[in-house]
Amino acid sequence: MSDKPESLTQADESALMQLREEIDRLDTEILALISKRANCAMKVAEVKMKASGNAGAVFYRPEREAQVLTSVMDRNPGPLGNEDMAKLFREIMSACLALEKPMEVAYLGPEGTFTQQAALKHFGQWVKTKPMPAIDEVFREVEAGACNYGVVPVENSSEGIVNHTLDTFITSNIKICGEVELRIHHHLLAGPNTKHDKISRIYSHQQSLAQCRKWLDAHMPHAERIAVSSNAEAAKRVQGEWNSAAIAGELAASLYDLEIVESKIEDSPDNSTRFLIIGTEQVGPSSEDKTSLVVSMRNEPGALYHLLKPFNEFGVDMTRLETRPSMTGNWTYVFFIDFAGHCEDESAIKVINAIRETAVDVKVLGSYPKGVL
Amino acid sequence: MSDKPESLTQADESALMQLREEIDRLDTEILALISKRANCAMKVAEVKMKASGNAGAVFYRPEREAQVLTSVMDRNPGPLGNEDMAKLFREIMSACLALEKPMEVAYLGPEGTFTQQAALKHFGQWVKTKPMPAIDEVFREVEAGACNYGVVPVENSSEGIVNHTLDTFITSNIKICGEVELRIHHHLLAGPNTKHDKISRIYSHQQSLAQCRKWLDAHMPHAERIAVSSNAEAAKRVQGEWNSAAIAGELAASLYDLEIVESKIEDSPDNSTRFLIIGTEQVGPSSEDKTSLVVSMRNEPGALYHLLKPFNEFGVDMTRLETRPSMTGNWTYVFFIDFAGHCEDESAIKVINAIRETAVDVKVLGSYPKGVL
Repeated sequence: MSDKPESLTQADESALMQLREEIDRLDTEILALISKRANCAMKVAEVKMKASGNAGAVFYRPEREAQVLTSVMDRNPGPLGNEDMAKLFREIMSACLALEKPMEVAYLGPEGTFTQQAALKHFGQWVKTKPMPAIDEVFREVEAGACNYGVVPVENSSEGIVNHTLDTFITSNIKICGEVELRIHHHLLAGPNTKHDKISRIYSHQQSLAQCRKWLDAHMPHAERIAVSSNAEAAKRVQGEWNSAAIAGELAASLYDLEIVESKIEDSPDNSTRFLIIGTEQVGPSSEDKTSLVVSMRNEPGALYHLLKPFNEFGVDMTRLETRPSMTGNWTYVFFIDFAGHCEDESAIKVINAIRETAVDVKVLGSYPKGVL
Repeated sequence: MSDKPESLTQADESALMQLREEIDRLDTEILALISKRANCAMKVAEVKMKASGNAGAVFYRPEREAQVLTSVMDRNPGPLGNEDMAKLFREIMSACLALEKPMEVAYLGPEGTFTQQAALKHFGQWVKTKPMPAIDEVFREVEAGACNYGVVPVENSSEGIVNHTLDTFITSNIKICGEVELRIHHHLLAGPNTKHDKISRIYSHQQSLAQCRKWLDAHMPHAERIAVSSNAEAAKRVQGEWNSAAIAGELAASLYDLEIVESKIEDSPDNSTRFLIIGTEQVGPSSEDKTSLVVSMRNEPGALYHLLKPFNEFGVDMTRLETRPSMTGNWTYVFFIDFAGHCEDESAIKVINAIRETAVDVKVLGSYPKGVL
């Protein structure tokens, strides 16, 4: 019945038939090639297992995966977009890797959070994900070897920098092995009995209010904007008030029985959250890497200048600098620094050595491939 | 650094190098073939668009997808498992289909529920999913054409048959276009202050208690088991009681701030939930189909016998029968029937005609490919 909903002519029918046969032929070839690829992956595992005496062999190589994905994107002839094609190869690699050894990845739970989405985006569907109740438990799970990798948020559009994640790095031996970004949407939420034209107060986290400023200016110019500690807190408050609304995500709407008055009100469609992949091994160089450092400096005049000078001197591109109060002493600052390149690059070694001369402590949190997807 | 964590010999290194080169060659071929496949898919879309005058062309063909997946599984040479290979092809088809026309699928929300997981499992990652607050709103969204398809739970291991879904079919013109199963896990949850050896009461839905009976007999033989209306309700009750626990899923733990005392305590590892894909068009025959009927019968002696006889007579395999009280009259019953085969099969036509002779009403809810994954 559904075969001809669109009055197809005889010629159309035969064109479709030919195309379907062609697709079937292509599928046969794709099937054979993916199977060959899986066989190669198994042979790689064999060589590694033999060399390591069956213990501690490292099967997942973030730098190699990043190279494969970058190369796929470079050579992609279309019509599929580069990201789409890379996502398909991510899944093919994920399936092949699961043959070598099924990987377990801890993440900041519960199930269904953005962090789980990030884990699946980075490792593909074949990875086993394990929800943990807190960020430091994700770290512990990975340090203890119970999981191969962990995924934690590091910049959250609704909460800003996730300080807890940065702080945990200071006291841990965990390495950063990768990064992944997810797009996040904000919605205007209100209780089921709220009259939408009577909304006079809008709660949200400061960052979310800022991210929806233009929309609010245009559509709710007279409503008071009130910054609260988190978007979930905003949603909670709105529950008891008939004249207020919250800016928060989908999940908050369902948790607090609110309705979505208007969806996707963020000003920038690229509103995204960044997550870090953490592991126990330093990742080797890929074609495009990033390095994260944590540096403790004495609180002296010119400290920041001393810190920044070497980057300029050796031509290393610092992409980010965060200052955090040190937890171990009143008179030192802690800086989190990201720069482009791998810590084994000659220029990076020079920068790190130069910083070491003036800093109380320098720790390389890890070099890792720049997020490809 | 991580390049040689496993003391590789020169010979190992060169073997690995060769394997990686082979993988790169295979990737190049896979890339080219997937791109060709995507081109074919676009040509299919062109033919259909032209034939339908650019409106109402049907791009997604559940029966065709099922055939492709079945054929892939039949011919899969390994080493990847059949399910793994089918999942990869699901994603390839999903990406190609998104080129023709991005599909929107409504599901019973919120985000992160099993129903969303089911939608992504069935349609692949390229589909746009849209959460709806209630089952009948999923139906409405699809009937109104706002979404191409919908996904609703029909048998939930924690709630049994989802009666609301069945009831909605009675009054709707929606067709069943497919089915998908997901494995579900149960956990024992308790409050953070509960002493685990002092748990004397366990709340859960009747079905979940039944599904964890053996584990409870072995580990909690003295705890009282109390059936409540849902697993969420069970988790809610436990919040206020220091000596009780609930059996529920991951999400309930986080919603009600409970700890997972013991995870995956279900007796059968195959504990699963079934979802239906709903749409507006009847699906054509694939190689292996199922048909769902709803039949109203007068409450007369022998009614059920009259209903079942034709199946036996024409050799049609009835796989399921559910009885529901009719909502339109006290003196009729409503039966939900699944049988193997397509409603266009000769034997199925005979059965349906025979039932029509005795029934008050017969409605074909849809014929659809048996779930492949």
